[in-house]
Amino acid sequence: MGVSGVGKSTIGSLLSKKLGIPFFDGDDYHPESNILKMSKGEPLNDKDRLDWLRTLNRLAVNQLKTNSCIIVCSALKEKYREILAYSIESKSKWVFLNGSFEHILERIKNRKGHFMPAHLLKSQFETLEIPKNAIEININQTPNNIVEIIKNEIISKSQFGLFGLGVMGKSLCRNLASKNFRISMFNRHVESKEVDVAVNFKNEFEELSTALAFDDIEFFVNSLQTPRKIMLMVNAGKTIDLVIEDILPFLSAEDILIDGGNSNYNKTKERFDYLKSKNIHFIGTGVSGGEQGALKGPSIMPGGDKEVYEKVKPFFEAIAAKGENNLPCCSYIGPEGSGHFVKMVHNGIEYVEMQLLAEVYTLLKALGNNPDQMADILESWKETNSYLLEITIDILRKKEGDDWLIHKIMDKAGNKGTGNWTTITTAQLGVPSTMIASALFSRYTSFYKDERTAASINFEAKDNSKPNITNTDILKAYQFARIMNHYQGFKLIIEASNSYKWELNLSELSRIWTNGCIIRSDLMVNLVEVFKSTDNLLTSDIIIQQLKSLKPSIKKVVSQGVLNELPIPNLSESINFLNCFTTANSSANLIQAQRDYFGAHTYQRIDDKSNKFYHTNWI
Amino acid sequence: MGVSGVGKSTIGSLLSKKLGIPFFDGDDYHPESNILKMSKGEPLNDKDRLDWLRTLNRLAVNQLKTNSCIIVCSALKEKYREILAYSIESKSKWVFLNGSFEHILERIKNRKGHFMPAHLLKSQFETLEIPKNAIEININQTPNNIVEIIKNEIISKSQFGLFGLGVMGKSLCRNLASKNFRISMFNRHVESKEVDVAVNFKNEFEELSTALAFDDIEFFVNSLQTPRKIMLMVNAGKTIDLVIEDILPFLSAEDILIDGGNSNYNKTKERFDYLKSKNIHFIGTGVSGGEQGALKGPSIMPGGDKEVYEKVKPFFEAIAAKGENNLPCCSYIGPEGSGHFVKMVHNGIEYVEMQLLAEVYTLLKALGNNPDQMADILESWKETNSYLLEITIDILRKKEGDDWLIHKIMDKAGNKGTGNWTTITTAQLGVPSTMIASALFSRYTSFYKDERTAASINFEAKDNSKPNITNTDILKAYQFARIMNHYQGFKLIIEASNSYKWELNLSELSRIWTNGCIIRSDLMVNLVEVFKSTDNLLTSDIIIQQLKSLKPSIKKVVSQGVLNELPIPNLSESINFLNCFTTANSSANLIQAQRDYFGAHTYQRIDDKSNKFYHTNWI
Repeated sequence: MGVSGVGKSTIGSLLSKKLGIPFFDGDDYHPESNILKMSKGEPLNDKDRLDWLRTLNRLAVNQLKTNSCIIVCSALKEKYREILAYSIESKSKWVFLNGSFEHILERIKNRKGHFMPAHLLKSQFETLEIPKNAIEININQTPNNIVEIIKNEIISKSQFGLFGLGVMGKSLCRNLASKNFRISMFNRHVESKEVDVAVNFKNEFEELSTALAFDDIEFFVNSLQTPRKIMLMVNAGKTIDLVIEDILPFLSAEDILIDGGNSNYNKTKERFDYLKSKNIHFIGTGVSGGEQGALKGPSIMPGGDKEVYEKVKPFFEAIAAKGENNLPCCSYIGPEGSGHFVKMVHNGIEYVEMQLLAEVYTLLKALGNNPDQMADILESWKETNSYLLEITIDILRKKEGDDWLIHKIMDKAGNKGTGNWTTITTAQLGVPSTMIASALFSRYTSFYKDERTAASINFEAKDNSKPNITNTDILKAYQFARIMNHYQGFKLIIEASNSYKWELNLSELSRIWTNGCIIRSDLMVNLVEVFKSTDNLLTSDIIIQQLKSLKPSIKKVVSQGVLNELPIPNLSESINFLNCFTTANSSANLIQAQRDYFGAHTYQRIDDKSNKFYHTNWI
Repeated sequence: MGVSGVGKSTIGSLLSKKLGIPFFDGDDYHPESNILKMSKGEPLNDKDRLDWLRTLNRLAVNQLKTNSCIIVCSALKEKYREILAYSIESKSKWVFLNGSFEHILERIKNRKGHFMPAHLLKSQFETLEIPKNAIEININQTPNNIVEIIKNEIISKSQFGLFGLGVMGKSLCRNLASKNFRISMFNRHVESKEVDVAVNFKNEFEELSTALAFDDIEFFVNSLQTPRKIMLMVNAGKTIDLVIEDILPFLSAEDILIDGGNSNYNKTKERFDYLKSKNIHFIGTGVSGGEQGALKGPSIMPGGDKEVYEKVKPFFEAIAAKGENNLPCCSYIGPEGSGHFVKMVHNGIEYVEMQLLAEVYTLLKALGNNPDQMADILESWKETNSYLLEITIDILRKKEGDDWLIHKIMDKAGNKGTGNWTTITTAQLGVPSTMIASALFSRYTSFYKDERTAASINFEAKDNSKPNITNTDILKAYQFARIMNHYQGFKLIIEASNSYKWELNLSELSRIWTNGCIIRSDLMVNLVEVFKSTDNLLTSDIIIQQLKSLKPSIKKVVSQGVLNELPIPNLSESINFLNCFTTANSSANLIQAQRDYFGAHTYQRIDDKSNKFYHTNWI
């Protein structure tokens, strides 16, 4: 693209020969009426151009079905370019040839047989809207040089780099490549441990045939178009900082680093600031969906500067899962570490969803069901469907010989940090996310296997106590607890948003969690609508009615669970929390009195709205 | 003290004139038999000395009842000095006059009328054990100079400095002064806010007549004997670091800074290392007991280098509360931040103890008792006495006009960080301190007063539901939950001790918590013995039997509480936790299966003791 006379056709046809892909001159596709108008010296209006631009777009779309191509067209306005690249945005790349008015005027005067009078150049410059995402090249150099630059920038270089080929990194590579992005892939070389990881991976999958594979950071970085977009998929924590230091020397100003791991959101803020000082942009993004999600469509939660996000948006939206109306499960979250923050809370909610299913398993087992029978029961709970419920059914049905595999699995639940951080964060922010803490602690408790086993003997624990509850009671208790879990999780997010002034949008957030991620569920779909009118689920009439109708069941299940000594801490916490939260006048007055008694910490009074602090000499 | 001939009598009598306090020459108190022996040139043996030393000790004790005094005595061995200072250790100060053998020999030869033959000097030097905590002065200077040094070091300078005269700082000052320590007190000057705080405080209390008051840091520091012992009683957090930077320029190598605030134990470790690099010692100490405890005897939990602690020990032990056998409720805890760590957990346990009483209040209220009736019931629970129970009784009885004061207090419970930190720490260390987290979150929940009030209306919360339980059920449930609280708190401490290799002693720790601190109780007294045989309460037969006999009551109370929608999260968690912890085969196997399903996180098997990790393709 570029104004008339800038040399588009010359450069385009040279490039075509160099690369062996077809060349098309946009001007050849003008309708007769346009050519006539231009030769009369009349400028075209937008109506004149519409059909023409659509023709060129169809040309490009058809070409891309089998091959690439080069099309030249002045394309001076953003809206023209939108028409030209319609439906092939992520596969198009703009080259903007530019030069001074005088230089181009001189050229046009020397040109023969062109139908455009030179005096129209001025109007072209006035019309020109400088493109944002194009490779801009000044024409004050030889055509061969220009072609070389374009070739390096656009053709042989990759659009997106992925650093770290673990389970998630590999899946994202295949996902990106399958969307026809040209990618570069890097994995470090570790003698006799990680050798030729990238190359071997490339050779393993058809869709990676055009991907470039590296184990040298400099070559990897240089293989990318600038501004570079490099997504780091390495272990969260210190590794990220080491990797950033390794890459930094090879980056240029305005390059974009993306951390797609489960990094701590405070660290993301620190890295964001650090890299800003080096003129490098940083996007901290949550990616949920596990291996399969990353491959087929994850939920993506990017945080950072919005204008920087716009540059990676085409990639993220293309690979993200699709929700209702085929909208991508990816949306700009907010500034700094907000992307990693919401991913952290996502995982906290996930901890609880998993723990609740584990407690449902405990209850169904206590009622005498074997895993297949449990799976049948869960299968009948389609009204409360979720990804985690579905996989639990698969898991329960899995057999190994005559027995179910679940019976063989060690009951020590691991954790990789995000549940832990959510609990720490909720403690730091002063928000009572009691169920996430409870789910985390349940995993911790599970790790004391030997002490538990000893205690079960010492305390002569019951193991055949049968609670007086029905499957429907369990279903309703489970539904109740899930709503409370989502209440608490989103509450933590909105409180953080208020504290950090992130202005997060809970409805949009729940929307990108309706597919691709681990906590996708029918409930989440419902919340998209609920969050359009409130950020606080406990003020939503629909939610209040649901909780009220489910409450008798959770009360019954928890009281029966406790009486029968069944471990149901999370179900228990769900009702305890609501009982606390619906207590207008709590017993915290006694705690304030105690604090004032022994520590002179003072207290406020319910009959003094001035919030004044009082101290009493209690004895 | 010092060898014969070093000039003790000369210096002692000069000093006596200078200061106007009586002088006693120890040699004047020898029995006839000793004098005879020495004049024959026979060395005294320890038996010869015993009566003599005791006589001098009685002399000192009697003098100190009304005045100070100077006593000279060779006191060459540590055990002699122990006899001399017996029962007045904290009020005694040793001055060690020293010189070369040749110098002293020369003096003795020139001396007339002394009954000790010069040839015994050699045996004196052999016997001499250099004292550790004495002011050592070389005699190669004029007697007047020597007297001036002693005067500056021992007489006019204070033994201990206290920085920051808030509620706790003031109480500690009065406590130290009442034990006859000469102290210096500092409070900053803040125009029209904090003016003459130290001076006004000194003038307010009789016992502070000998204390020195400052609002200038340099004068304050210079008023202290070296190595200086300065206790900082300022707000935890950044203030401590600012204060350290303010003081540092005036300190000398080997001076000791003591942080007596509720500092984060990680920060204490950082400050310890930082000050070590400046040759300054650092003691991070927990101090519990609130205003009254600090005044009359707190529980003190110092952490740092043991040999440094020895230097502040006389002060701490003198002001600490006294437990059984009159032993001080102060004991060296361990290295680095361990003192602040155990104080933090102390406060975590305290949060739970307070929350449990608040829940007892909720239950007793639900049964229809007014505060006076509740106080009567708690009064009858003497078998489970504790400080917090006692103050709760006082609080419940407190009336304001016709109503009870408790009814007027706003039910929003504040917190100052330590419950918060304990929850964060337990999350970080992988230890399930569920009750502390629950108590913290209860305070957080209480803060949402407006949302609670709205929710109580929206959910039509019951407010007159009467659980089917007795007062005895509540008592037993309360006892059960308290044991579980102490189990979890001490478990967190021993796990931290193992992680950080602190080698903490739980029995000794519970001993110093039997008096002075907020969580002192009969239960704590019992634990001193229990912890002599195990670090894990859930393996103690006594504890197991108690929990088993109390379990029916907690189950009943919790199930009734839940059914009647009463907020009892902490009681509830106590039984839920035990139910989890006595489950040999938990449902964590399902969580591991889920993690393996969606994230390929792998799992271990119960039938493979090699701890190998497995992965299954679940579908």
